Amino acid sequence: MTTTEWDASSLTRRFDEVRAHTEMLAAPLSPEDQTVQSMADVSPTKWHRAHVTWFFETFVLAENEHGFAPFQDKYWFLFNSYYEAVGPRFSRADRGVITRPGAHDVGVYRGNVDDRVRGLLAGLDSGTVEKLTPTIELGFHHEQQHQELLLMDIKHVLSMNPMRPVYAGAPDPHTDPDALGWVDVAGGLVEIGHDAGSFSFDNELPRHQTWLEPYRLADRLVTNAEWLEFMADGGYERSEFWLSDGWARVKAEGWQAPFYWEQLDGVWFEHTLHGTWPVNPGLPASHLSHYEADAYATWAGKRLPTEAEWEHGVVADGQAADDRVVGNLANTESFHPRAAQPGAGALRQVYGDCWEWTSSAYLAYPGFHPAEGAIGEYNGKFMSNQMVLRGGCALTPPGHARATYRNFFPAGSRWALSGVRLADGGAPSQPKASTA
Amino acid sequence: MTTTEWDASSLTRRFDEVRAHTEMLAAPLSPEDQTVQSMADVSPTKWHRAHVTWFFETFVLAENEHGFAPFQDKYWFLFNSYYEAVGPRFSRADRGVITRPGAHDVGVYRGNVDDRVRGLLAGLDSGTVEKLTPTIELGFHHEQQHQELLLMDIKHVLSMNPMRPVYAGAPDPHTDPDALGWVDVAGGLVEIGHDAGSFSFDNELPRHQTWLEPYRLADRLVTNAEWLEFMADGGYERSEFWLSDGWARVKAEGWQAPFYWEQLDGVWFEHTLHGTWPVNPGLPASHLSHYEADAYATWAGKRLPTEAEWEHGVVADGQAADDRVVGNLANTESFHPRAAQPGAGALRQVYGDCWEWTSSAYLAYPGFHPAEGAIGEYNGKFMSNQMVLRGGCALTPPGHARATYRNFFPAGSRWALSGVRLADGGAPSQPKASTA
Amino acid sequence: MTTTEWDASSLTRRFDEVRAHTEMLAAPLSPEDQTVQSMADVSPTKWHRAHVTWFFETFVLAENEHGFAPFQDKYWFLFNSYYEAVGPRFSRADRGVITRPGAHDVGVYRGNVDDRVRGLLAGLDSGTVEKLTPTIELGFHHEQQHQELLLMDIKHVLSMNPMRPVYAGAPDPHTDPDALGWVDVAGGLVEIGHDAGSFSFDNELPRHQTWLEPYRLADRLVTNAEWLEFMADGGYERSEFWLSDGWARVKAEGWQAPFYWEQLDGVWFEHTLHGTWPVNPGLPASHLSHYEADAYATWAGKRLPTEAEWEHGVVADGQAADDRVVGNLANTESFHPRAAQPGAGALRQVYGDCWEWTSSAYLAYPGFHPAEGAIGEYNGKFMSNQMVLRGGCALTPPGHARATYRNFFPAGSRWALSGVRLADGGAPSQPKASTA
Amino acid sequence: MTTTEWDASSLTRRFDEVRAHTEMLAAPLSPEDQTVQSMADVSPTKWHRAHVTWFFETFVLAENEHGFAPFQDKYWFLFNSYYEAVGPRFSRADRGVITRPGAHDVGVYRGNVDDRVRGLLAGLDSGTVEKLTPTIELGFHHEQQHQELLLMDIKHVLSMNPMRPVYAGAPDPHTDPDALGWVDVAGGLVEIGHDAGSFSFDNELPRHQTWLEPYRLADRLVTNAEWLEFMADGGYERSEFWLSDGWARVKAEGWQAPFYWEQLDGVWFEHTLHGTWPVNPGLPASHLSHYEADAYATWAGKRLPTEAEWEHGVVADGQAADDRVVGNLANTESFHPRAAQPGAGALRQVYGDCWEWTSSAYLAYPGFHPAEGAIGEYNGKFMSNQMVLRGGCALTPPGHARATYRNFFPAGSRWALSGVRLADGGAPSQPKASTA
Repeated sequence: MTTTEWDASSLTRRFDEVRAHTEMLAAPLSPEDQTVQSMADVSPTKWHRAHVTWFFETFVLAENEHGFAPFQDKYWFLFNSYYEAVGPRFSRADRGVITRPGAHDVGVYRGNVDDRVRGLLAGLDSGTVEKLTPTIELGFHHEQQHQELLLMDIKHVLSMNPMRPVYAGAPDPHTDPDALGWVDVAGGLVEIGHDAGSFSFDNELPRHQTWLEPYRLADRLVTNAEWLEFMADGGYERSEFWLSDGWARVKAEGWQAPFYWEQLDGVWFEHTLHGTWPVNPGLPASHLSHYEADAYATWAGKRLPTEAEWEHGVVADGQAADDRVVGNLANTESFHPRAAQPGAGALRQVYGDCWEWTSSAYLAYPGFHPAEGAIGEYNGKFMSNQMVLRGGCALTPPGHARATYRNFFPAGSRWALSGVRLADGGAPSQPKASTA
Repeated sequence: MTTTEWDASSLTRRFDEVRAHTEMLAAPLSPEDQTVQSMADVSPTKWHRAHVTWFFETFVLAENEHGFAPFQDKYWFLFNSYYEAVGPRFSRADRGVITRPGAHDVGVYRGNVDDRVRGLLAGLDSGTVEKLTPTIELGFHHEQQHQELLLMDIKHVLSMNPMRPVYAGAPDPHTDPDALGWVDVAGGLVEIGHDAGSFSFDNELPRHQTWLEPYRLADRLVTNAEWLEFMADGGYERSEFWLSDGWARVKAEGWQAPFYWEQLDGVWFEHTLHGTWPVNPGLPASHLSHYEADAYATWAGKRLPTEAEWEHGVVADGQAADDRVVGNLANTESFHPRAAQPGAGALRQVYGDCWEWTSSAYLAYPGFHPAEGAIGEYNGKFMSNQMVLRGGCALTPPGHARATYRNFFPAGSRWALSGVRLADGGAPSQPKASTA
Repeated sequence: MTTTEWDASSLTRRFDEVRAHTEMLAAPLSPEDQTVQSMADVSPTKWHRAHVTWFFETFVLAENEHGFAPFQDKYWFLFNSYYEAVGPRFSRADRGVITRPGAHDVGVYRGNVDDRVRGLLAGLDSGTVEKLTPTIELGFHHEQQHQELLLMDIKHVLSMNPMRPVYAGAPDPHTDPDALGWVDVAGGLVEIGHDAGSFSFDNELPRHQTWLEPYRLADRLVTNAEWLEFMADGGYERSEFWLSDGWARVKAEGWQAPFYWEQLDGVWFEHTLHGTWPVNPGLPASHLSHYEADAYATWAGKRLPTEAEWEHGVVADGQAADDRVVGNLANTESFHPRAAQPGAGALRQVYGDCWEWTSSAYLAYPGFHPAEGAIGEYNGKFMSNQMVLRGGCALTPPGHARATYRNFFPAGSRWALSGVRLADGGAPSQPKASTA
Repeated sequence: MTTTEWDASSLTRRFDEVRAHTEMLAAPLSPEDQTVQSMADVSPTKWHRAHVTWFFETFVLAENEHGFAPFQDKYWFLFNSYYEAVGPRFSRADRGVITRPGAHDVGVYRGNVDDRVRGLLAGLDSGTVEKLTPTIELGFHHEQQHQELLLMDIKHVLSMNPMRPVYAGAPDPHTDPDALGWVDVAGGLVEIGHDAGSFSFDNELPRHQTWLEPYRLADRLVTNAEWLEFMADGGYERSEFWLSDGWARVKAEGWQAPFYWEQLDGVWFEHTLHGTWPVNPGLPASHLSHYEADAYATWAGKRLPTEAEWEHGVVADGQAADDRVVGNLANTESFHPRAAQPGAGALRQVYGDCWEWTSSAYLAYPGFHPAEGAIGEYNGKFMSNQMVLRGGCALTPPGHARATYRNFFPAGSRWALSGVRLADGGAPSQPKASTA
């Protein structure tokens, strides 16, 4: 990983901000809401709150606090997510059977670790701060990832409930789609990947050369209105648009529309964190699997961008040059992607609406080395059977997204807040049966 | 079903008692505890609290309250357990994903229905009381069944938690087993089944003749000490003791001891509602499947009683003659079976310790007719692939057990509070491979 | 078990007959037909042919042949069905992956064991013959059971093939149902079970008393025409007719008609060993689960008989008095149940058409003791989660059926040649929701 | 796809060669052997023989033969593998339940189609030959792919059999591993992919530029001796070497050694088509999943090559320059990888021993377009959740391998004849936890 430069007091200030943001997101949720795991991929809210705390306790306090003892021996076991090197851990699929510690007890745990981290930072010399910075900063970004997941997960939990509960807020007014434009990119022998000077995960490294043929990127995401056209044209009934694995899922799981859509008396509704509302045509189509994204692109006679095309295109468009660290600054009010604002000649909806599926498998960059120790399990061991998504989404916390960020999910995942930006031109086109 | 005679005020008084008992049992449980469903057989505490309320709302208020409207339309759907005739219902296995209504909201629902039932009863003439009595009294016994299930279910929920949470109370002191005696029963052409004059479920009817060869019943339940002998003699490793289906489960699920036992540093511990404690040798072995009960009996050179043998034996022993309605009067303090009290010549531990597996399949009595309407789904449709248990257990609420009561579970069930009483003599012996 | 009296030459003659019958049944089947296992319940034809041979090798030759050595060491492992006491065995569900020994090799194995058994019998004194008779006679009946299974199993194998292959023969001409009559039976304290003097399995023992209320039995099986009425009246769509487990299967597996029925252009066809033909209205409805049999009886306002009612009724009707050993004498020509012959006042279609589901669970008779040794695994260990069927069917070999015979299958089984005879009167009626 | 130039008579001669090779491979297999499907991935031998015939019937005869009628209507359905555009097809996982047509009938089908294809070719003018060439040549390569699969599949079928059957031949004598050397490659902006002038599949196209850092390739495959070292060092017990998905498989399926290895009395044996023999240390380790290949590389401090590195390295090494079409010329005698021949400075075991796992996901090349029509389903729709393998193996038929060939399997597949060649240097290293 790479890191930013920090002093102890700015580290502490940032620590407080990040920790407070998690609690703000959990605040609208009852103890019951915070307990449930609605499917294996989902974790309970209170588990997220505890796990990010465990991360600081394990990787910061355990090795640096004088006379360290865990807050609770068994939390060590309960709140380890997947770090084999840290020891045995509680089964992921059973996180939802743990009723104690409850939501309140997790708050007590958070308070305890917060105090101890603050105490640790207060007493350090600058050399030790420098040594600890990479892990603490990783803890910030780790907690932000879980902030995003917390929202995706509680969205799923609430979606299972026929009472149609609301997390917060109200939906956007009806909007019609703005026209789709294209941004041309020249390609050539370009560089992608992070180049240090600020924080990055290890999987964004090293910065390296890659060859791109000329291509173009759509200037906004595919809209709900366009998705309805795809559906009306038999999108979910015609195998010729689909990857074989995708078609098998369509049949096995009866996909007929995006994940959170439901037809009531002939009208399509969408479950959102703001409640269940009629599908809004101007908003980005969201909660799509890679298979759906790819099938849509094939139907549209276009393709998905590679991750290199996405990153180079965004940087070339000037959206990462002077502001490498961006995010959804407004996400304390709205928890759903919004309509593209009118505009032309530049990419829109890059970071704050939907994670964008690429056509790239999630694999190591040339020369990649995972970090040393248990932290090395953070990214590398998941480089198998997943696809890269780029950008960010309406649930991404402020200051968390950047152009080089590599998000990843299995191709069949739908509960993440994902969407589609089309590409066209020299690079790979549709990897499946011709529609001719 | 058969019923007792009631007037409106005694019905109301009993209604209040039964309803209050449920809330007393739920009181030690947090909102998180009340939300979780740890396996498909288990229901969340707050679901139990709501479902028994739905039962009164559906079967008492809906047809008799002037200007009836459901408290909440969707509760109709959420809290129906299995009544096809009442309409569609929420998937049983997904009860644990419902976070709203929460534990508090369920309390509000209970209060509302309580008030309306009391109001209804206050305004009725005696003819209408008589007409409603069977359904209301069924509602009492239905709620009592769920009181027992609530405790069995929360025991399972808490057992999944490595924090080893305690529901309430403290375990009994170490006791050694009392000697086992036998009670002889003559048999002949006897009568079993309920004979009216007080409440019974439809499956206890009609009272009818059956032929029994002479037999004898053990005067107490099999103890933990005896179960340890069975284990030490290879009970879980030797196929010759087991029914074929049972042996398949032993292998598939790795059974090595009763359901809630766990070996720590060479010592067997048992999870109870009072916490996790070393196995107490004088207490009844409990949380056993029918397969284990049957294998134990084969190992011991004995057999399980038929349900007719059990019922006739208990009645002949004088334990149902003058007190047809019995139960675990003390179960507000202890939630675990207790050691048999010294004594001789009569059956011990009949109603208040463990439900006792019989060798009888759960089938209709000769001449059985299910009740009319949706209530007819209460018992009859489950007469398939289940075995009968008789008696009662430490979790059975006061006034709920009786000699003719037919409980039933699939042969592989282990989360119910079940135990073993041996039989011997003229009737069926071991239905599997000889141990010779 | 009980046995008939035999001398060595009549034993040898019978041995030759039984062994030849198996080969005659396998003769129309190609090596490919004989190899396939189309579901876990089904065994390949060549496995049946080898397993019954293994039975004689293991239980007759191994203990009695001078200088015994197995024909092939690994056959010992491959062709053991379920005898734990004999040692490890090949996984049941994987019988269909064994291509060698092939059909021809199995013939060689059969010939070898045949010669050795004949040689053994030729050299025995009469005392040893008497000692071996029970096992050899069990071997006859065991092989006959597999003759029946071989046909049920190959019927299933061929049914999976869209080429619609024919095993043999041609279907019966179209017939209309004969009128249904009823036979009254007085009941009382009756005896059932086998009473020695000829062969029986251990599960038919001991003969014992049981009490029966007066009842009546339908004089023929339910017909296809009647089943079509049940279907037309929503039989597979109305939960009120069904046991809860049965209804769950209807929904999970999409049952809409008997197992081997298929609708083509609005006409119902049935797969038979004679090919696929339009459903013949006068023939017995067949290949039904216990759940379907029970649902039909409920729909018809009747019930299934208990096994005691069936046996006592058949004997009282004079159909087992002078001819205890009966069977489908003509089953070398026809492999499908046939229409009831006109007639009145007596039970029809008792042994040669369809195994008849009863309402009795398969459990031990009072005083039952399994046979000693590995043979004791034959029946007893399966007394769990199965229902009793009585009579015999069109695939039952000559001389194999009798009034006391207890066949058994899980309630959801449909590939066996099963049908429905209704009962009415004093004994148990519908064990599920009222249809009122 | 790209094609070679052919005239009608050379096409016919090649057709005869390819078709005869399939029958030669099937010749040692009995009808029983040819019928069985031992897991969903495996197809029966007679299905392979029929399917490749169906391919010629469907794609060559149906559109070009005057008065075409299918040989058998239902073969159209039975022998379609995965072409959605051709119509419904028989379930892949159930291929093993089809006993008719049998092995002999499939031979008749083959003969019929052979005659008709020869007849068609005999009557064509050269323009039509040119038009048909791409499809006919694809048919050759398609049949060759199935020749390889036929052998991989029957190897699996026979491996399930405790009789330890032999397909053919005898194993190689014991050999010790030859020393491992390395071949350096300069990298830079290189070209990969097929460049026309001879046959290729569509997925090898288009030829395109890609950037490679300098790297080196092992000059031979990893040996059994080396694999035993990996095992001895806890290779299958230490999570730090494994991708997360791989580790989950290790635990779920109990992997402890390569797929076909079995330990008997402390000695490792390997199931081969030549029988079961002690593991031969000098031979390539084979039948490994991508997960195992990757874990081994991590353990060894090396990595797998990307597919671009593999292809460019092999071509740079001079092994594809003058002989683009290569293969296992001797595979009519040996069906197992052989020891690397001593030698230095050049790559060994490139085409005829084991398919070599790369670190590249199977995705579209930049600018890829699938072929038009149903043939377009050949490759493109499988570009998801698979990894690329390069080279060829001991089961690859003569003339089938080439440097640009992209084979692909899911990362967990083990029944294919796969092995490991290590890479090192500038490109991606271990994508998982550090072993430090």
